[in-house]
Amino acid sequence: MKLAEIYLQMRSDMNFIEKELEKSITTKHGLLREAASHLMKAGGKRIRPVFVLLAGKLGTYDLERLKNVAVALELIHMATLVHDDVIDDAEKRRGQLTVKAKWDNRIAMYTGDYILAEGLRTVTELGMPRIHKILSKAIVQVCVGEVEQIRDFHNWNQNLRRYLHRIKRKTALLIAISCQLGAIAAGATEQVVRAMYNYGYHVGMAFQITDDILDFVGDEKKLGKPSGNDLRQGNITLPAIYCYHDVKSAEQLQYLLRSENHGMDKAIEYIRQSDGIHYAQCLADKYLKKALSWLDDLPDTSSRATLYDLANFIGKRQY
Amino acid sequence: MKLAEIYLQMRSDMNFIEKELEKSITTKHGLLREAASHLMKAGGKRIRPVFVLLAGKLGTYDLERLKNVAVALELIHMATLVHDDVIDDAEKRRGQLTVKAKWDNRIAMYTGDYILAEGLRTVTELGMPRIHKILSKAIVQVCVGEVEQIRDFHNWNQNLRRYLHRIKRKTALLIAISCQLGAIAAGATEQVVRAMYNYGYHVGMAFQITDDILDFVGDEKKLGKPSGNDLRQGNITLPAIYCYHDVKSAEQLQYLLRSENHGMDKAIEYIRQSDGIHYAQCLADKYLKKALSWLDDLPDTSSRATLYDLANFIGKRQY
Repeated sequence: MKLAEIYLQMRSDMNFIEKELEKSITTKHGLLREAASHLMKAGGKRIRPVFVLLAGKLGTYDLERLKNVAVALELIHMATLVHDDVIDDAEKRRGQLTVKAKWDNRIAMYTGDYILAEGLRTVTELGMPRIHKILSKAIVQVCVGEVEQIRDFHNWNQNLRRYLHRIKRKTALLIAISCQLGAIAAGATEQVVRAMYNYGYHVGMAFQITDDILDFVGDEKKLGKPSGNDLRQGNITLPAIYCYHDVKSAEQLQYLLRSENHGMDKAIEYIRQSDGIHYAQCLADKYLKKALSWLDDLPDTSSRATLYDLANFIGKRQY
Repeated sequence: MKLAEIYLQMRSDMNFIEKELEKSITTKHGLLREAASHLMKAGGKRIRPVFVLLAGKLGTYDLERLKNVAVALELIHMATLVHDDVIDDAEKRRGQLTVKAKWDNRIAMYTGDYILAEGLRTVTELGMPRIHKILSKAIVQVCVGEVEQIRDFHNWNQNLRRYLHRIKRKTALLIAISCQLGAIAAGATEQVVRAMYNYGYHVGMAFQITDDILDFVGDEKKLGKPSGNDLRQGNITLPAIYCYHDVKSAEQLQYLLRSENHGMDKAIEYIRQSDGIHYAQCLADKYLKKALSWLDDLPDTSSRATLYDLANFIGKRQY
């Protein structure tokens, strides 16, 4: 099943979530509403809400309750994007002007703060302290990950472990808790809750590694950003790390990066042609396989089948 | 009773809170720990924890429970300071280099995010959904206030209502909920909880108006920043608004602000000598009186007497 079919199947509930998302940032405050709604319209795959709803089907599915988790997680994800755009000095995301480009850094910072706070507020509607706790803990980790990313900028001597730690905090954790909290909000058994967390974590890792590969080999138009964008920003991702671990390739890379005539373009092309891409793909596949294995612990329902398809899509997506 | 005496009386509990504050930002992550601990050492009056503890004395005083509220509120306050320093382009606060000056804007933004998240995480330790809800709602309002402040920068045509709305969100709200949540965490009656919120709100308004007055007339050394700093940043506060409401003064102010030779210095001096300072003081006194009147609803305990003294200190402080 393709992603489009999964969305089609969940269309009516996802439309509801989209409307709730829009409502959540309808503030009286002109500038803030404008900035937040600009962000909302830029869209996105809304992958976190999809995970929340699918996980919710493993317990007592109650959309009114699940919406609080789904909206909260998408808002928190959006907040990190706004702050990342400040840091990355990004002018465009998904082909649209970023908040920081359209307004300025100050507005982007506070818009991010506002959306983050609104996400946390939304989840308190549930009145489930366990969920509040898991969510706020995860956000602390996400913030730590953001600072780690800055620390590791331009650092070619980072090892695989450091990279994996970083993408766990940056991406996998929020996907893991989307699955976990959806299951908790639906009152699923502890075994299911645990399986869903682990499924989400491994899918999230595969998702980010795939993202990092696509940054090198993906279609610029589909991605809405220039190829090799991460490296240009100083963010050294898995294909580059693998490529640099080979002594000969490392020498060649250093030479290219130092060369004055489009050195960065050449370095990106070099990594694109290197084994680093293939190795990264293998690791993404490994995480994907592990994610799928956690689904074995779940009862054999249509929701489980969809989670299976979703993971496979994420591992094989082109954009 | 002076502030020093109030602190002396609460010394042992406040020392405990200070240690908990330090512990709360002891992360394994070097850069983040350094930035957060730099901030911690810069000190501050820790006025929000003081309010939490005093409010806690109006119910069943349990320091282990109250610490979660006290630490959360101080962390959230600190997070807003770090983000404000990014916006204000401030090099120093309380005579110390700011995080953004010592590191950079990116680190300051993420340090603020981290401290905010840690504040929210701390409060979830209590497992009281009502408290989580009030706190996250308040943070949303604080963020709205921050964007409003940017919108109102350099806007001389703002009215008193707009200013009051802004300082409510910027300052009064966090002090109001410090009092309210301290009482709730201690299981105080609803009447006490309500009185404490209102006491805190009015004290907070008086506190910010006094701050805005001191920015013009205070001792630069004690404040740790140059006089008229707000106006220099474009933040038009109550003394300036009052001064500008008088047609003749407004003309003179406009003339000074346009003049090339130290126009800003002259405008600040003009406001300092104007009736605006006096009017602002009157409004602060009004809020203070209202705050004290809410204490009448409380049982006559030593804690009530201290809250009385604390409000009076805040209305009359010189730094």
